[in-house]
Amino acid sequence: MSAPTGAGPADPERRARIAWARIGEPDDKDIWAVVGDRGHVRALEDLVAGRVSLGPARDARARSLDVDRELEMTRRCRATVLVPGDATWPDGMDDLERPPHCLWVRGDADLAGLAARSVAVVGARAATAYGIDVAREIGWGMSDRGFTVVSGAAFGIDAAAHEGSLGAGGPSVAFLACGIDRDYPAAHRGLIGRVAESGAVVTELPPGSAPLRLRFLARNRLIAAFAAGTVVVEAGRRSGSLNTARHADELSRLVGAVPGPVHSAVSAGCHELVRDKGAALVTDAEDVADLVGGFGVDAARPVHVADADEDWSELDRVVFGVVPVRRPVPVDAIITAAAAPAPTVIAALSRLEVCGVVRRSMDGWQKVPAPR
Amino acid sequence: MSAPTGAGPADPERRARIAWARIGEPDDKDIWAVVGDRGHVRALEDLVAGRVSLGPARDARARSLDVDRELEMTRRCRATVLVPGDATWPDGMDDLERPPHCLWVRGDADLAGLAARSVAVVGARAATAYGIDVAREIGWGMSDRGFTVVSGAAFGIDAAAHEGSLGAGGPSVAFLACGIDRDYPAAHRGLIGRVAESGAVVTELPPGSAPLRLRFLARNRLIAAFAAGTVVVEAGRRSGSLNTARHADELSRLVGAVPGPVHSAVSAGCHELVRDKGAALVTDAEDVADLVGGFGVDAARPVHVADADEDWSELDRVVFGVVPVRRPVPVDAIITAAAAPAPTVIAALSRLEVCGVVRRSMDGWQKVPAPR
Repeated sequence: MSAPTGAGPADPERRARIAWARIGEPDDKDIWAVVGDRGHVRALEDLVAGRVSLGPARDARARSLDVDRELEMTRRCRATVLVPGDATWPDGMDDLERPPHCLWVRGDADLAGLAARSVAVVGARAATAYGIDVAREIGWGMSDRGFTVVSGAAFGIDAAAHEGSLGAGGPSVAFLACGIDRDYPAAHRGLIGRVAESGAVVTELPPGSAPLRLRFLARNRLIAAFAAGTVVVEAGRRSGSLNTARHADELSRLVGAVPGPVHSAVSAGCHELVRDKGAALVTDAEDVADLVGGFGVDAARPVHVADADEDWSELDRVVFGVVPVRRPVPVDAIITAAAAPAPTVIAALSRLEVCGVVRRSMDGWQKVPAPR
Repeated sequence: MSAPTGAGPADPERRARIAWARIGEPDDKDIWAVVGDRGHVRALEDLVAGRVSLGPARDARARSLDVDRELEMTRRCRATVLVPGDATWPDGMDDLERPPHCLWVRGDADLAGLAARSVAVVGARAATAYGIDVAREIGWGMSDRGFTVVSGAAFGIDAAAHEGSLGAGGPSVAFLACGIDRDYPAAHRGLIGRVAESGAVVTELPPGSAPLRLRFLARNRLIAAFAAGTVVVEAGRRSGSLNTARHADELSRLVGAVPGPVHSAVSAGCHELVRDKGAALVTDAEDVADLVGGFGVDAARPVHVADADEDWSELDRVVFGVVPVRRPVPVDAIITAAAAPAPTVIAALSRLEVCGVVRRSMDGWQKVPAPR
């Protein structure tokens, strides 16, 4: 189903995918029932020829479609279209049950590269000053640590996360629930422009598409799939950002939530995530980096360092450095990260275990947190 | 080692335990090294006879001790002394590595009965208005649900928890870090008196003992051991209430922590408990009851009720009612709680599982929470 890397606008797969984006809604079950079996090209041929039907509206749209005009509109928006197989296609999309047919992208950065070390920071539009502060701090702190900060360009938490990220030099990525030419909300035109300059603005909706409620819900799954983890800063009990968190969880991405006052309605959703859905409690960028960061690289909190510290060999220090605090990792990963022969790494782990600074469990090795 | 129930003040075990409480400090390792082997009576004889030594200070105290005078002081404080084996001795104490030798108690209530359905609500002395509010609400809500609220009578969170509990009619229990005759802090004399009237004021320190730092740390282990679970409302990173939580965890009691603003220094300890120590996040008495309550009895949040609800048999309803939300329980416990034959309960569980309202895991059965 994937077009070869670097395929041009004449490529049939790319043209068919653009057509499908125009024919139906994002996350459209009916379309995937047709496309999933036959692939985008043959499914489109069958639809246009009347060999399959998706109902009058979609059938009519398929017959009246002009993909050259779509490509021209895309050019006029100064956007590009990515399809699976393109070098900069973000692989995370392929984890979705119904991935986007294609993505419209504004911004020169490599979208796949931006995704590699990324975190979604999302939350309520009707955020409090507290939530705005925390979102900005986490956005700033994560960009400062070299992470792409992904969000939805909405009022409240989303905007604060983007602003924080841009303040630290970005990159930031915004997923829109409308066409790439529609800066929604309009008040965020400037913000969306700066996000595009720093990283990318992305949508699966063709140019001209209006921001409809169902499109926001569909958009949330892209944010969840794109980023390595999702942090919810403030969310009411029925906030759309809980929907993003649920998608992230279903996609086996890491989910974090920021606590707040128990009487704050927009912290209730975050508390629910931690209490009932297994989300990690995160209070700052350090926590978030520890949650979603590369193992070893982003280990956060100060950890117990034994008195025997000075007697450690260089290898002991290296091995200790790559063992994460929060989650255990298998010994193979530690050997790889330490870039040393397996027996010497295992011997170092044993020494560190005797010192009481790392411990082993069924799931592998992790640092022992500092004593309280 | 236990005195027979109802043994009088002439009982040698009781007298020896009172003596040991006077000879050393609470949680005294040296004393338990001697007492653990020989029992309280023989260990005291050996110490007085010089066959063992605990150093000059403790040896001298042992020789100069007058247990009749201790009993007279206790009477004058209108307190009683409990020892293991007494009908009202709280069994939880026996889970401690170094349990109290005896307990001085003010208040007529049955201490063992008070412990049976109880929760410790503890936290920082330097609490914020927010923490005070939440502690009072949880204290109130837990007493309203028939739980004993246990705390340390300190300024801040402790006092608010007691006050909330008393406001709902109690009972409340305070563990002191000083003698039963020393109302510490003095400003809480009235509060401590009301706690004694509602439930009990308890200490392992003999009358006249001053509140010293080490005694607070030792006292915390009694709070943790007494209650079915411990909730920390506000705690700085080095708060003594984290020490109570650690004891509770080590004693396999349930631990909950209340979230707060991430910039609040007195919520940092609570966030650390949730993030790194596996404490449950709790936001109100409903959450706390669900955490520490009897299984089934106190299940809290609304849960998914299938459309097929009306087709359920009476047994289906009973079985559904006793399956908890938050923690899975073994099928045996459900059979016992449902008070029905095992095969019919298991059949009911299977029907409920098909309805999607309960699920089974390695650890047993629990309700499926309501969809978001």
